Amino acid sequence: MESSNNNSTPTEPTTTTTEVEDESKSKGGKKARGLKTPKGTRDYEPDQMKIREKVFSKITTCFKRHGAVTIETPVFELKETLTGKYGEDSKLIYDLQDQGGELCSLRYDLTVPFARYCAMNRVKTIKRYQIGRVYRRDNPVMNRGRFREFYQCDFDIAGDYDLMVPDAEAVKLITEILTELNVGNFKVKINHRKLLDGMFALCGVPADKFRTVCSSVDKLDKTPWAEVRKEMVEQKGLPEEVADKIQPFVIQSGHPLVLLKKLQDEKQLETDPSAKQGLYELSVLFDYLNAMGCIDNVLFDLSLARGLDYYTGVIYEAVLTDPNQVGSIAGGGRYDDLIGIFGSTKIPAVGFSIGVERVFSILESKAKKDANFRVTDTDVMVASIDKGMVKERMKICSELWSAKIKAEFLPKENPKLPAQLSYAEQSKIPFAVVIGGREVEQGVVLVKNLGTRQQDTVPRDKLVETLRQKIDEYYKSLPESPY
Amino acid sequence: MESSNNNSTPTEPTTTTTEVEDESKSKGGKKARGLKTPKGTRDYEPDQMKIREKVFSKITTCFKRHGAVTIETPVFELKETLTGKYGEDSKLIYDLQDQGGELCSLRYDLTVPFARYCAMNRVKTIKRYQIGRVYRRDNPVMNRGRFREFYQCDFDIAGDYDLMVPDAEAVKLITEILTELNVGNFKVKINHRKLLDGMFALCGVPADKFRTVCSSVDKLDKTPWAEVRKEMVEQKGLPEEVADKIQPFVIQSGHPLVLLKKLQDEKQLETDPSAKQGLYELSVLFDYLNAMGCIDNVLFDLSLARGLDYYTGVIYEAVLTDPNQVGSIAGGGRYDDLIGIFGSTKIPAVGFSIGVERVFSILESKAKKDANFRVTDTDVMVASIDKGMVKERMKICSELWSAKIKAEFLPKENPKLPAQLSYAEQSKIPFAVVIGGREVEQGVVLVKNLGTRQQDTVPRDKLVETLRQKIDEYYKSLPESPY
Repeated sequence: MESSNNNSTPTEPTTTTTEVEDESKSKGGKKARGLKTPKGTRDYEPDQMKIREKVFSKITTCFKRHGAVTIETPVFELKETLTGKYGEDSKLIYDLQDQGGELCSLRYDLTVPFARYCAMNRVKTIKRYQIGRVYRRDNPVMNRGRFREFYQCDFDIAGDYDLMVPDAEAVKLITEILTELNVGNFKVKINHRKLLDGMFALCGVPADKFRTVCSSVDKLDKTPWAEVRKEMVEQKGLPEEVADKIQPFVIQSGHPLVLLKKLQDEKQLETDPSAKQGLYELSVLFDYLNAMGCIDNVLFDLSLARGLDYYTGVIYEAVLTDPNQVGSIAGGGRYDDLIGIFGSTKIPAVGFSIGVERVFSILESKAKKDANFRVTDTDVMVASIDKGMVKERMKICSELWSAKIKAEFLPKENPKLPAQLSYAEQSKIPFAVVIGGREVEQGVVLVKNLGTRQQDTVPRDKLVETLRQKIDEYYKSLPESPY
Repeated sequence: MESSNNNSTPTEPTTTTTEVEDESKSKGGKKARGLKTPKGTRDYEPDQMKIREKVFSKITTCFKRHGAVTIETPVFELKETLTGKYGEDSKLIYDLQDQGGELCSLRYDLTVPFARYCAMNRVKTIKRYQIGRVYRRDNPVMNRGRFREFYQCDFDIAGDYDLMVPDAEAVKLITEILTELNVGNFKVKINHRKLLDGMFALCGVPADKFRTVCSSVDKLDKTPWAEVRKEMVEQKGLPEEVADKIQPFVIQSGHPLVLLKKLQDEKQLETDPSAKQGLYELSVLFDYLNAMGCIDNVLFDLSLARGLDYYTGVIYEAVLTDPNQVGSIAGGGRYDDLIGIFGSTKIPAVGFSIGVERVFSILESKAKKDANFRVTDTDVMVASIDKGMVKERMKICSELWSAKIKAEFLPKENPKLPAQLSYAEQSKIPFAVVIGGREVEQGVVLVKNLGTRQQDTVPRDKLVETLRQKIDEYYKSLPESPY
């Protein structure tokens, strides 16, 4: 599916190496001079990875709850696989150098590789998710979450199923995921390509201009009507009176059942067969979404058009509605012809893509405010008081690792106790096991709760049991994570 | 770290598009004609992904148990970042096409990007793991697990720590991971670059030939001595009498403590300062491995040399020792100078890489023999007997999804009951909830155990509770997974 990561006007990639968004500058000069990742890419730091892991785990849980399987495709495809699938955006595709052999390009999204996969393996039906990075030579705006290498989380149902049944499940799943991710209030805007086409026809737009007018209309969420109108008239050659007819349609949005009834009552759209069919399909979809209990998360929005050419039916886009939110966070729709382009059999499909980079940013801000956030999972710091105890620490750690307890020791021969405990504190490790010559002699260890400072002397052979109990109690006492 | 995936002699990439290992042929013509992934790459199918997920989860658990954090770096780096790091293998690097802007290359391993990351962010100490795909324009041998795009699981400890302490933890961790993965018997072969260098010096190898002789010696695990000798003499210009002196050294291998004592007693190697230092460091390492309880998994092997230039100290390679096993499955060692190349500060480091593609193959074979193996996690199939019940199925599914129960329904308006149950059977879904007009009227549902055929009539408002209990019992009754 098209990512919400790339929903601005495509611009020519810059051809200089000047970095508008140089990472080495954005972090205040802490970075070493001259070293960098390629333009538009970034490293994920350990704390970011911790959050990402949680996001992926939540999303994956939702996908699996619906019985989805997952696949993985190569990061590059044969160039010809991607050719002719992305319209104007094709210029943003990264090509591999011709080093002899096949011509290849980095994948631009996960949808076209999925279509290639289905056709190649003669898959007739599949409900699959895929999480992976995609590549676009776009102008990066790193601090607004727009990268040249970024993650997409895709879900698609391919197969010759009944009208709007898989479509309804896809929309339902978006609402489940966004609820679970706890990113604030949202709405799933819905529209239908057939309804748009019918609407354009009624306004007098020539059929060969439907898709390009779609692209203009799609900008209405960020651009005032006057500008969009100008683009349609001046750049796309639409007569002024035609452009003016479009406005009263596309400014309409509202609760699906309410707006649908209004449009049906007005009977104007139903005079066009395509619009009529679109309205009928939407009525079926809304009925299903009602049954699935998610209709109130949905907004029927006649200005929603989506950028990509391959959509053939219902289209949707999830937006965050709280103040200061970035807007689009997921998008998708029905594309019944894409798989057929690769194979001999037409296989209808519907799906969506979650723009997770934005989710990461939102949850990163939340994690920063969470006093209990930590990067490692270590539960026990194994420390020593006296010198010459590195092998004792190794033995205890090995015993804990065997018992599946997460434990660390400082990789020094004779570290000072304060250094060991301060490492534990920095890492927010909740417990320490401390030994000295006397403890080894007496066959005991000290178990220290580093939060409460409580300290117990525990026989060596009760260590694992004691720690398990204490760790268990510790996690039960923690407040729920806010992100 | 260098991957065990690429341990054969590098050969020139072919420059024709003829596919020796065409996937469309290898699966017996089931695939659509003309469609393929690029040479040396493949799709992971849903059943393969299921196994991969388990492998990654087990490996990640081990990494985290040792307090490791994770990072992610871009799939491509600036070309100059990779230049001069891989010696002869540099010709296997994939370059991106120059489309204006920076020159970039796909990453060849995860070690050089990690070193760039540490230098760029002025990281002084880090224990990190990273799981990701790397790219090599090698000759693929797909059915032996050698790909151009393949996964590596890397673990490294960077920082100025004490002699052999992090090295010992890395070896210990390899033994933990291979034990947990349940891939059969294994040994971690260990050697030391300083010992090798000293040995070569004693044999009369000129210092500027140490590294290239290393490469030849490294082939001894697959190639007979006579051939390796020939390569050293004819290709690398070593005098015959020098080559002959090498053999008695490199044929030695054995239990670390036994072989170490033998070499120390012989006193021959200790006459060279580098060899003496190597032996001393190994004695410290073996002492630590003994304390950590994994010395019996280790083999001290004087023929182990490792291919890459950047190793500076201890080197190791894990091999599977059961009959018909593929051999090398992990490798690594100490590289004290690599991070310093990128920055101004020398930061010593040690680490390893697990060649997981081989692990996948081994576990795939095991999974094929497991009657309980299934690809989806769905616990409940929601089915209907009568027509016109699609919204009822949607309602029940939504209720189950809200209760975090994994449920599916067939995306058809009026599917036949046998079709729904046969889908459930194929997917090995353990339970079905079945409704008809009568059940809806009476406010009940039928809950069917699809294995035992037991069927209960359950009040609609007890459905979630009943299913939770049944699902719980079902999983408790399952035998432990054999893979």
